[in-house]
Amino acid sequence: MKYQFENFPIITLTTDFGLADYFVGCMKGVILSINPNVNIVDISHEIKSYDVTGCCYFLSSFYKYYPPNTINVVVVDPGVGSSRKPLLIKADDYYFIGPDNGIFSSVLENADHAEIYHLTNSDFFAKFVSSTFHGRDIFAPVSAYLSLNTHISKFGEKIENIKLLNNIKPKLSHSKIIGNIVYQDRFGNLITNINKDLTKNIERIVIGKVQIDKISSSYNEVAKGELLALVGSSGFLEISANMGSAARIIDRSSEVVCLLN
Amino acid sequence: MKYQFENFPIITLTTDFGLADYFVGCMKGVILSINPNVNIVDISHEIKSYDVTGCCYFLSSFYKYYPPNTINVVVVDPGVGSSRKPLLIKADDYYFIGPDNGIFSSVLENADHAEIYHLTNSDFFAKFVSSTFHGRDIFAPVSAYLSLNTHISKFGEKIENIKLLNNIKPKLSHSKIIGNIVYQDRFGNLITNINKDLTKNIERIVIGKVQIDKISSSYNEVAKGELLALVGSSGFLEISANMGSAARIIDRSSEVVCLLN
Amino acid sequence: MKYQFENFPIITLTTDFGLADYFVGCMKGVILSINPNVNIVDISHEIKSYDVTGCCYFLSSFYKYYPPNTINVVVVDPGVGSSRKPLLIKADDYYFIGPDNGIFSSVLENADHAEIYHLTNSDFFAKFVSSTFHGRDIFAPVSAYLSLNTHISKFGEKIENIKLLNNIKPKLSHSKIIGNIVYQDRFGNLITNINKDLTKNIERIVIGKVQIDKISSSYNEVAKGELLALVGSSGFLEISANMGSAARIIDRSSEVVCLLN
Repeated sequence: MKYQFENFPIITLTTDFGLADYFVGCMKGVILSINPNVNIVDISHEIKSYDVTGCCYFLSSFYKYYPPNTINVVVVDPGVGSSRKPLLIKADDYYFIGPDNGIFSSVLENADHAEIYHLTNSDFFAKFVSSTFHGRDIFAPVSAYLSLNTHISKFGEKIENIKLLNNIKPKLSHSKIIGNIVYQDRFGNLITNINKDLTKNIERIVIGKVQIDKISSSYNEVAKGELLALVGSSGFLEISANMGSAARIIDRSSEVVCLLN
Repeated sequence: MKYQFENFPIITLTTDFGLADYFVGCMKGVILSINPNVNIVDISHEIKSYDVTGCCYFLSSFYKYYPPNTINVVVVDPGVGSSRKPLLIKADDYYFIGPDNGIFSSVLENADHAEIYHLTNSDFFAKFVSSTFHGRDIFAPVSAYLSLNTHISKFGEKIENIKLLNNIKPKLSHSKIIGNIVYQDRFGNLITNINKDLTKNIERIVIGKVQIDKISSSYNEVAKGELLALVGSSGFLEISANMGSAARIIDRSSEVVCLLN
Repeated sequence: MKYQFENFPIITLTTDFGLADYFVGCMKGVILSINPNVNIVDISHEIKSYDVTGCCYFLSSFYKYYPPNTINVVVVDPGVGSSRKPLLIKADDYYFIGPDNGIFSSVLENADHAEIYHLTNSDFFAKFVSSTFHGRDIFAPVSAYLSLNTHISKFGEKIENIKLLNNIKPKLSHSKIIGNIVYQDRFGNLITNINKDLTKNIERIVIGKVQIDKISSSYNEVAKGELLALVGSSGFLEISANMGSAARIIDRSSEVVCLLN
């Protein structure tokens, strides 16, 4: 029998816990107590609290850069303690563990094959599961047992449907694309859900009262402080301001209307 | 002979150095230069400067989640360069390294068995010990040599007494418990030193001019912005505000008076 | 043949990407996909954007604490996408990877022997190299292939000259030393480029309108809030304020004029 996780499996952590408190430290301790031979990689602990859409985009921006079989623990969980399900997903070659609140929408959207399990087997949880910290008590121990080659089917019941966000994909017609802003980075760049493959025929972009007349290829094509649109390093259309913050000019909840030629 | 630290010992780091400067990077380099086969785990580098009480609580919140023999380096050290002793403590199954200023009070309070050493053997220090950065010059190298199976008794002189904080335990009487706020997390939750075992007969909580009439089991039992008391994920009574910050309403230095029924 | 990188090579990361976004997570994934048996150490991701001088000083403050053969990836890269060269440097026993913008000035200044390569061999880059994220697409994969014992000469063309900052060394005369402030730490301490070996004959320090009359050996030699000069833990002369921030009092761009006795 061949094990999936050989010497040094990778568990990534993405949370909104910040690094000032002891939350992340506890999760790492729980994982290392179950499997000391695991490589825990911090992705970010600064996801905006309650920002499920942003977390969904964030996740889709990094996971494919990791080796197959990487286990991604994602805890942005405003509904902790409510009836939202804890999940384990295998999507193509990657594993995802976290709450059923929409954060895995992009992962499922992009996967050719996915298996979803509702985490119900408390053998793999902490002995006492708190109502406020499932990161420590459910998601961390499940990730560690998975890295020890526990088969995915042992963790719970297979299910077909989970919560999906409805703004993951833009709306397309022959004359326009209507997209959304899904993430704001720390420079104030606003990242849309419009993939670079869709940008070829865009003639003009309208966001609220603002209009952008072309897609630039670098920031300095416009004057300092002015808005521009470009395809960012994650492969999506971004709205930026040259040496400034687009987020200060544009309301993040606005629709991004792209008129095609 | 059996070695305590086999393949991949764990050294955790808890400091108030922040991550913007080179302090933490230097400590990791010193450790890896002595023992490259060690797993360095960042717990937090955002402990509030000079907050010895908060650090003491912080420490007690995470260390028991780690495997036995984990080495915890803790550097919140306002007295660096003064005559405060550098310490190495074995408390039950865990090691602690840091300054003698009270940060280890909870660890000792909770341990069945403890051995304390004053770090005096400069063979395990940097060649030149600065007066301002014992994290790099004393605590980091000592942790690395310990992880290489150097016996604890080699590092210095065994001592019996260290500095203990006097507000670690609440005062108990038959009619009330008088506790303290020992930690403020980044959401503004105020964590007290009142363990959940003590909360069963609490009828009313008085903090300065504020009064809380019950212990809730979730935040949304009170209106938005209102104060509540609950037992948090670390097992202590916390004062919180529903979707708000209790720290903005209550002075952290106030006594927490719990009237019993 | 003896390999330089045996079991567990170290790659350190120093960037201005912050930890809120997915940039650092992507770089780690790229590295681990090429070489899963590498120890990635975060030094800092909070270098001030565009602060090439500060980054240069920062780098020289930590790298010598690491074991020989450590690979240091440094991405403070305001010119990404322009014609600035991507570099791989071997300076004495350490490797450095990053942009040719002056950040490696101190490293070269301090090295007895250095070899510099312009990274031109795209076999070691990502298949698609973006114009905005060379950290992920060039520097991370090069560091990983290097850690797999690819010979340094395979990565590109050997060159002799790179960009050097002109304020790395102070100007010396028989009566005075004129130095610069090269780094500001998070406490507001201002670190100069004046090495401790140069401080022995300093009688008075003049910075703009401010004058400091001696070199102290601890903060509390002056009144609270007052300025002082001392040799900091990194071995350079620092301007500090006792329990305060020197950066609030002194303009960082001022010359530091030291009059000798």
